[in-house]
Amino acid sequence: MHGGAGCLPDNVTPERVLAYRQSLDRILRLAEDLLTAGETALDVAERTVMALEDDTLFNAGKGSVPNQLGYHQLDASIMDGRHLACGAVGAVSTLRNPIRAARLVMEQTRHILLVGKDADDFGRLHQLDQVSQDYYFDPVRWEQFEASQQQLGYPVLKTPPYGMPELPEPPIATGDTDISRGTVGCVVLDSSGNLASATSTGGTSSKTCGRVGDTGIIGGGTYADNRGCAISCTGHGEQFMRHSIAFQVNWRVSRQNESLQDVVVDCIDNVLQPGGGGIIAVDHQGNLALEMNTKSMHRAWADSTGQRGVAVYRDEKR
Amino acid sequence: MHGGAGCLPDNVTPERVLAYRQSLDRILRLAEDLLTAGETALDVAERTVMALEDDTLFNAGKGSVPNQLGYHQLDASIMDGRHLACGAVGAVSTLRNPIRAARLVMEQTRHILLVGKDADDFGRLHQLDQVSQDYYFDPVRWEQFEASQQQLGYPVLKTPPYGMPELPEPPIATGDTDISRGTVGCVVLDSSGNLASATSTGGTSSKTCGRVGDTGIIGGGTYADNRGCAISCTGHGEQFMRHSIAFQVNWRVSRQNESLQDVVVDCIDNVLQPGGGGIIAVDHQGNLALEMNTKSMHRAWADSTGQRGVAVYRDEKR
Repeated sequence: MHGGAGCLPDNVTPERVLAYRQSLDRILRLAEDLLTAGETALDVAERTVMALEDDTLFNAGKGSVPNQLGYHQLDASIMDGRHLACGAVGAVSTLRNPIRAARLVMEQTRHILLVGKDADDFGRLHQLDQVSQDYYFDPVRWEQFEASQQQLGYPVLKTPPYGMPELPEPPIATGDTDISRGTVGCVVLDSSGNLASATSTGGTSSKTCGRVGDTGIIGGGTYADNRGCAISCTGHGEQFMRHSIAFQVNWRVSRQNESLQDVVVDCIDNVLQPGGGGIIAVDHQGNLALEMNTKSMHRAWADSTGQRGVAVYRDEKR
Repeated sequence: MHGGAGCLPDNVTPERVLAYRQSLDRILRLAEDLLTAGETALDVAERTVMALEDDTLFNAGKGSVPNQLGYHQLDASIMDGRHLACGAVGAVSTLRNPIRAARLVMEQTRHILLVGKDADDFGRLHQLDQVSQDYYFDPVRWEQFEASQQQLGYPVLKTPPYGMPELPEPPIATGDTDISRGTVGCVVLDSSGNLASATSTGGTSSKTCGRVGDTGIIGGGTYADNRGCAISCTGHGEQFMRHSIAFQVNWRVSRQNESLQDVVVDCIDNVLQPGGGGIIAVDHQGNLALEMNTKSMHRAWADSTGQRGVAVYRDEKR
């Protein structure tokens, strides 16, 4: 599982880094317990991502970054390696757990991607937990947001705009920022040999309203195929979309007989730009890859032999 | 260029088939004139798709099919093979030419995909032509829509719901229909060796509100890479998304040295399901592929030697 790449500022406190490690360890334990209890790869991927969404430390669900108007719009996707069934939502803004909506799209429609208010309505009609915008709010993210607004020349808001009767016109976006991204994701191989992956995000701070990143795109930030591997990506979403990274990793592993580690490292080193992000993946033999070209990627892993670990910075060994 | 695969009903009149041929021929001539005048591949792809959007015969822009509530939501994407620059919009509902918004996303933001009302606002703020829902209305599409609503067990509307003060709850979608799809697209190689592709659609009749298909997804329905080829897809969008068909075709041509024709035929025969749709593509050497596993695909082609043609049914020769 991962909790985002490149989202730790240089001046992060040791206490916050410790908090990340503790959350990762707690949620890893949850995933291990579910697998031990015989839950499927798909259920474990979804429930692990739900736990990451519910944790304010991570930029997904509660704790998501604001867009250029100070609002939260979230993306999520999920894929089942057995039949390539998949589902996703983009730019939702009233759902507690976007990953649950992604799974419902997969299982309750013949579609793959629903977006915007219609996707929120879809979740509501399926009885998913509804939240108001202030549920997503986190003071640390808001501070980063003020910095990114300033950097882009956008209006700096002093307080969240929730409940404002009329939204202002969004500033015309021509720039982007490198701070305050983050995503959560999980890849699972279960004891039946089934693969699954799930990814969820609040996107990038100060993003243009209505932007959907790779986390909402099957083949971009998420892919799973029992013949190959399960992949979840984090970082500068547009780079992952432009090169269909998640699809590409699986294609090269399953059709070109490249090793999982080689493909993931090649994508990180030669396809993405420096600082572009990170990739986690597991193949059908249980080989694991967790790579990044950022200084940090929140991550945790475990296998059936009891090997497990948690790491934050790039140079920490697995 | 293509105007959709598998969208001719068996009982189509000879007059309507002739109208398709005439429109394709007229728009092909426009594209030829632009290329002769030295316009870039990117401009020609965009303007050809704009002409197809403006033609009521095709399911894109004017003449788009309605969603499950009788409303129109449109997707479009564009890609420049020089630098892999790309842009897309999903589920827009007030823009005359969604392909123009896709190009603005590419050129005026650092993002790739904007969706929903926010994407409409983005287009409005960039002075794109705004239309009301009745602009998209076409009586032939409405008749097909009533059939697809019935087939799915959805409410059959007698008149378009535009301007209704309050929308009803959308029916919970569990089915899909095989009738009344369609998409338009264009792939171009210009005399400088640059490739571009553009795709636009109204989606599938009675689709779930907020659904975005492969036409809104770079790597799904659209891709262009000067080292490989330019691709535009049409058909059952979810199949193209699940297998990242446009990305896959380019990858196999540019990295695995497969011939364009072989890859396109393999995708049509072995990756897509029977009746799944069609693919048009041109590679950097000017090789052209136009293949489908449906009974028909509206299509037209031309090259610098003066070879040109228009076809509708599968068995028509190029």
